[in-house]
Amino acid sequence: MAVIVQKYGGTSVGSLERIQNVARRIAKTFDQGNNVVVILSAMSGVTDNLIHMAEKITEFPDKRELDVLLATGEQTTVALMAITLKSMGYKAVSLLGYQAEILTDSKSTKARILDIKATRIMELIKEKTIVIVAGFQGADEKGDITTLGRGGSDTSAVAVAAAIKADSCEIYTDVDGVYTADPNICKRARKLKYVNYEEMLEMASLGAKVLQIRSVEFGMKYNVPIHVRTSFNEEEGTMVVNDDVNMEQLVVSGVTHNKNQARITLRKVPDRPGIASKILSPIAEAGLIVDMIIQNTRQGNMTDLTFTVEKKDYKPALEIAKKTGKEINAEEVVGDENIAKVSVVGVGMRSHYGVAAKMFETLAAENINILLISTSEIRISCIIDEKYTELAVQALHTAFGLDNI
Amino acid sequence: MAVIVQKYGGTSVGSLERIQNVARRIAKTFDQGNNVVVILSAMSGVTDNLIHMAEKITEFPDKRELDVLLATGEQTTVALMAITLKSMGYKAVSLLGYQAEILTDSKSTKARILDIKATRIMELIKEKTIVIVAGFQGADEKGDITTLGRGGSDTSAVAVAAAIKADSCEIYTDVDGVYTADPNICKRARKLKYVNYEEMLEMASLGAKVLQIRSVEFGMKYNVPIHVRTSFNEEEGTMVVNDDVNMEQLVVSGVTHNKNQARITLRKVPDRPGIASKILSPIAEAGLIVDMIIQNTRQGNMTDLTFTVEKKDYKPALEIAKKTGKEINAEEVVGDENIAKVSVVGVGMRSHYGVAAKMFETLAAENINILLISTSEIRISCIIDEKYTELAVQALHTAFGLDNI
Repeated sequence: MAVIVQKYGGTSVGSLERIQNVARRIAKTFDQGNNVVVILSAMSGVTDNLIHMAEKITEFPDKRELDVLLATGEQTTVALMAITLKSMGYKAVSLLGYQAEILTDSKSTKARILDIKATRIMELIKEKTIVIVAGFQGADEKGDITTLGRGGSDTSAVAVAAAIKADSCEIYTDVDGVYTADPNICKRARKLKYVNYEEMLEMASLGAKVLQIRSVEFGMKYNVPIHVRTSFNEEEGTMVVNDDVNMEQLVVSGVTHNKNQARITLRKVPDRPGIASKILSPIAEAGLIVDMIIQNTRQGNMTDLTFTVEKKDYKPALEIAKKTGKEINAEEVVGDENIAKVSVVGVGMRSHYGVAAKMFETLAAENINILLISTSEIRISCIIDEKYTELAVQALHTAFGLDNI
Repeated sequence: MAVIVQKYGGTSVGSLERIQNVARRIAKTFDQGNNVVVILSAMSGVTDNLIHMAEKITEFPDKRELDVLLATGEQTTVALMAITLKSMGYKAVSLLGYQAEILTDSKSTKARILDIKATRIMELIKEKTIVIVAGFQGADEKGDITTLGRGGSDTSAVAVAAAIKADSCEIYTDVDGVYTADPNICKRARKLKYVNYEEMLEMASLGAKVLQIRSVEFGMKYNVPIHVRTSFNEEEGTMVVNDDVNMEQLVVSGVTHNKNQARITLRKVPDRPGIASKILSPIAEAGLIVDMIIQNTRQGNMTDLTFTVEKKDYKPALEIAKKTGKEINAEEVVGDENIAKVSVVGVGMRSHYGVAAKMFETLAAENINILLISTSEIRISCIIDEKYTELAVQALHTAFGLDNI
């Protein structure tokens, strides 16, 4: 008998009616002779409402207590789901984070899972009971409730699947799989049958909001195959798996884009050790997250340093950079909010030359100027003028042969 | 330094604004040099909404899961209160039932407290931290969430006060104390400064919804003085205490009434052993609660048996009684929905004769017919025609000298 973990997101459990739909899907999987462990998110909108309520009291609500508050969202859905399944005649039991023994560190609102004992889950499985686990939440050593950050239910699901050595982990989400590009801006985007863990990580960190990054890391670490699909139909979605299972032999698996970018450049700063740190430390201390950092050697002992931040951090980051610029006698500090990042991702790059050249040629053929470049082993990213984003994605999608896979 | 337990009901924490008011009251008590442990209910209406949601799924929601669902109500208020107090600069920590080690039996939706370890509460008190405990909830040996039934937060408060040997237990509720009668129907009703545990028990079981009965039992058992008061002003309320502290030397402390009554009589049934059980067992098996039972010997070997039930149980109870009546050849089975119970309560009765006589005389003087009588050591109850309820309460209030205490 297979053990199947299913995770349903907030939209899938967004109303009593949808909870009943999901219950039927769970029951069907159980009736087919499987053991089923279900991980649920809060009903869509609930977590945001709770955060909003806390922020009405104070701008910075205490994080330990915020987690106690937020945990009620998933507690509600698991109870309602267990009530629904029991009313349908199935054996079902809800477990909260601490009851499922999801042990985390004590970093409230962004805790990390340290261990899952899952003794109770295993006992219930043996009794042929459907187990409904509250996603997004765990408990630290003291028994204090913690939450795992945005999208944390994905991580709960993959971690539980790893702990109980599940045969598969199905993540039911708003989208029906992982696409070669965002279908909203690239009509020829195709759903991938398989995607590699590392590719998925690059895609997730580039803004393709299908899976939480840490859930993919967990999947990779414990080799849990993750099936990303939708609860609104019966179609197969995308399997996130190991390298060697990837059947499609693509050089590039996807083209991603991220418009939430802004760029700041300090021109002609002294090129000496520690200068990057001098510029970037005050930014980090202000809690602003820097994405790309590029430093070019220029005339003599002077250099230009450019970095990118999220659009919302642009103004405070620019202000800090201007202050630092004065201190280190930079010639000028300039910025640009109208940029976007376009990337090609694929494990196939490792064994194929010329991917970067092809990317640059493709963009050049469309008269798109490349402002910055950064690369990883399986990714090449270019910063371009924001208005060319759609054109760039479409051109790259065709150039890398993704239109007809 | 005194340790003070304060319990705030659903109305007191019914909005963010009210939570902030209560937070100021807690802070004030703390600033006066006290250790404070707070027990909170869910925001008013929340528990009913959650029950309603579960009942939309199924008429009889699974009770274990219903408790998981309901527990979110108190979890929300304790988190919001801790966030509020911390934003005001106070050290505060919320604890859920299992975190406060409130161990109960496993009877979901009406669990009983078996033990409170309160080690964590005591540790936090030592660190001068305000402890905010979720009322109404506990956990059984397996760690499953349980709830204590309607008004359970009162019991949580008194039980925690007993466990940590608190100097006082303040119950903040909708009313500002315990009255000699319901002020809505008796304008001369006076607030009692003191009331005895036993009197409070009788009053609570007669429908004066000030405190949950079990909370008073706990108070009596562990000798916890309970101060019933309101959070909407600074006035002293009523102290629920031991016999010997009662300063007011009243024979009767209060006149209560309960209109939620109906009466069923089986006329001329054979007066033989087991007849009452034959009549009442089917009623109990149907889950209907019988209040008063009266059996009078009548002509020869025949008797009349009368019992009362809540109005909502009248019709099913009457149907069952008619069926039993046929089986045992009762002459007839009649019922009456338009009745009320009026009672006088007071520990002073124990040492004073003539209380019953005075009650009957008073009602007679108003031409109120007594349909049934029942008594306990400190209570005399009469069933009368419902329309005379107000008149009876007012007359008894005056007759027993409660108008000018």
